[in-house]
Amino acid sequence: MNRALNHLPETPTVLIERGVLGRNLSQMASFAAQQGLKLRPHAKTHKIIEIARAQLSAGATGLSVATIGEAEVFAEAGCRDLFIAYPLWPSPVKQERIRALLAKGVELRLGVDSPQAAAAWAGVDFANLGLMIELDSGHHRSGVAVDQVVEVARAVAGSGRVLRGLFTFPGHSYAPEQPALAARDEHDCLLAARSQLQQAGFEVDGLELSGGSTPSVTLTETGAATEIRPGVYVFNDAQQLELGRCRWEDIALTVAGTVVSRRKDLGQVILDAGSKILGSDRPAWASGFARIMEVPEARVSALSEHHATVVWPAGEALPELGTVLRVVPNHVCLVLNLVDEVTVINAAEVVGTWAVAARGRNN
Amino acid sequence: MNRALNHLPETPTVLIERGVLGRNLSQMASFAAQQGLKLRPHAKTHKIIEIARAQLSAGATGLSVATIGEAEVFAEAGCRDLFIAYPLWPSPVKQERIRALLAKGVELRLGVDSPQAAAAWAGVDFANLGLMIELDSGHHRSGVAVDQVVEVARAVAGSGRVLRGLFTFPGHSYAPEQPALAARDEHDCLLAARSQLQQAGFEVDGLELSGGSTPSVTLTETGAATEIRPGVYVFNDAQQLELGRCRWEDIALTVAGTVVSRRKDLGQVILDAGSKILGSDRPAWASGFARIMEVPEARVSALSEHHATVVWPAGEALPELGTVLRVVPNHVCLVLNLVDEVTVINAAEVVGTWAVAARGRNN
Repeated sequence: MNRALNHLPETPTVLIERGVLGRNLSQMASFAAQQGLKLRPHAKTHKIIEIARAQLSAGATGLSVATIGEAEVFAEAGCRDLFIAYPLWPSPVKQERIRALLAKGVELRLGVDSPQAAAAWAGVDFANLGLMIELDSGHHRSGVAVDQVVEVARAVAGSGRVLRGLFTFPGHSYAPEQPALAARDEHDCLLAARSQLQQAGFEVDGLELSGGSTPSVTLTETGAATEIRPGVYVFNDAQQLELGRCRWEDIALTVAGTVVSRRKDLGQVILDAGSKILGSDRPAWASGFARIMEVPEARVSALSEHHATVVWPAGEALPELGTVLRVVPNHVCLVLNLVDEVTVINAAEVVGTWAVAARGRNN
Repeated sequence: MNRALNHLPETPTVLIERGVLGRNLSQMASFAAQQGLKLRPHAKTHKIIEIARAQLSAGATGLSVATIGEAEVFAEAGCRDLFIAYPLWPSPVKQERIRALLAKGVELRLGVDSPQAAAAWAGVDFANLGLMIELDSGHHRSGVAVDQVVEVARAVAGSGRVLRGLFTFPGHSYAPEQPALAARDEHDCLLAARSQLQQAGFEVDGLELSGGSTPSVTLTETGAATEIRPGVYVFNDAQQLELGRCRWEDIALTVAGTVVSRRKDLGQVILDAGSKILGSDRPAWASGFARIMEVPEARVSALSEHHATVVWPAGEALPELGTVLRVVPNHVCLVLNLVDEVTVINAAEVVGTWAVAARGRNN
């Protein structure tokens, strides 16, 4: 890296720049405040208690999580307002775990996208449980089509649970030229579903309309969403760079890797950071599996479990064996699910470590 | 799944079929014995002590690992013969950790692919340390070209360390029609490098010639390799299925996932097993991100962190919400690096759990 780090742990290792992280948190908090939006950041990205607390201190109204396991970790750490933004299937064990969270007084919202799931939550009779109907705004993953929202809302009412609002993840924002279109789809979908509920006689004042992915969130038109759930913005990553949704100086997380092999004849070096620490997401539109902080023109052209193949810019001298480079992963959410601990740095100083408290909490 | 499992843990969760695992271990051990090859299975695939012990009991001469951390875990568990099949860069801390392993009496081999690294190991003066030169047999990852092997061998001799042999990973076997070609490349490369060393005056009798990837290993021609290092064969996965290198009944590891969302209009269901438990490797030649054990015609067409989008065969009824399906991941090595524990099953019975002892030991 440009400045040698003192006390750098052995590579490969995950580094978080505290100053950049803090700036990213502040900027999103300011954006939400200016727009009058509630900010409920998605903690599946970081899984770290210290970052969750910083988000809440900066004005977040609560956290979004993806699994009951994540909710348990952040509730234990003191977060009292959680939204499991996922259409959980209410198996007996999952119902029991949800009851245990509610019994501790946590304000809890759960996603539902079927009348069957909505009806099953009837068995969990707590006033602090609210349901949120998931809508498909164009990503075609989970979520119901707008014309089915009334059917699900009736099942929620029949279950005796409170309908707290509607949510969608406009994940089709993850492609070139798509963020603004996905923001528009989110806007239209939330308003159309709200309108259908109103026409069917539901009370819609006070319904939360929750949206927002990092690429689209600052493009969200006012007047639809009342709440946003960005996750990746805390660190940013190579996907956000390639989509033009962040700058190099907004990258707060890198993976330090050492040059262990070099081949002049192939114009490439091998780093000891592979898919077991970087994750292997590579959408078709990405120019590689990862980027290199020190050399923006370089590309990680192949990844195996413990090797990143870095194609060096033509005409530039390859780095020496033993050189430490900082890799910018494509998708940062996967990285935090691969390590138990991260190293916190401030400029060239190692200032501490944080445990990744919710790592591996997949269910 | 076809038979309901008793006491199934919550989904998503990793299941290992004990009987299939045992058969896979026996078959590879028999193959190696019949061919007169030493079997040194790659433990980075499973990272599980119980499986390592079963491999050693079945006749493996030692284990291959990818990192010092993995070597530490398996040495602690009693394995006395380890090969870190990776061109480690000998940083001061890594040298110190290697010294600590050697001081415990472990027979240890390390990969080198540069004169610089070979020279640096001079600082670790233990008789039980042997170096293995990595060769590039066509995968173009780490490893030297054959015409550089003499230069590295001279550096090994100059370092005072023992040259134990040569190794290569014919990873270009991972593509349709390539396994037999890669096996041939491995064979030619190992013999050509050995010949170069002989011509340069090195003693080559007794040099280990180590090769073998799961797709190519049973195609290895006799007369070149003396040792094989397959990893994936213990479980197999969707990549091996698609390459025609295993059968469905050889799949020992699946990820149980629950149908949490279904869309008749899109002909798809969503499972709660995503890239945070399946890994997201998808080579261009693979027909999807994963397969479904119960429905071979189905394909996982998209993966996000907690969602697998399963395109169901046209004309067949979608499974009901709450149905548990068993997902066959593309690349099983990534799965074991994502979970701290696996569930062991025997037919329809849950018979125990194993810790993934070396999970996350990336350095």
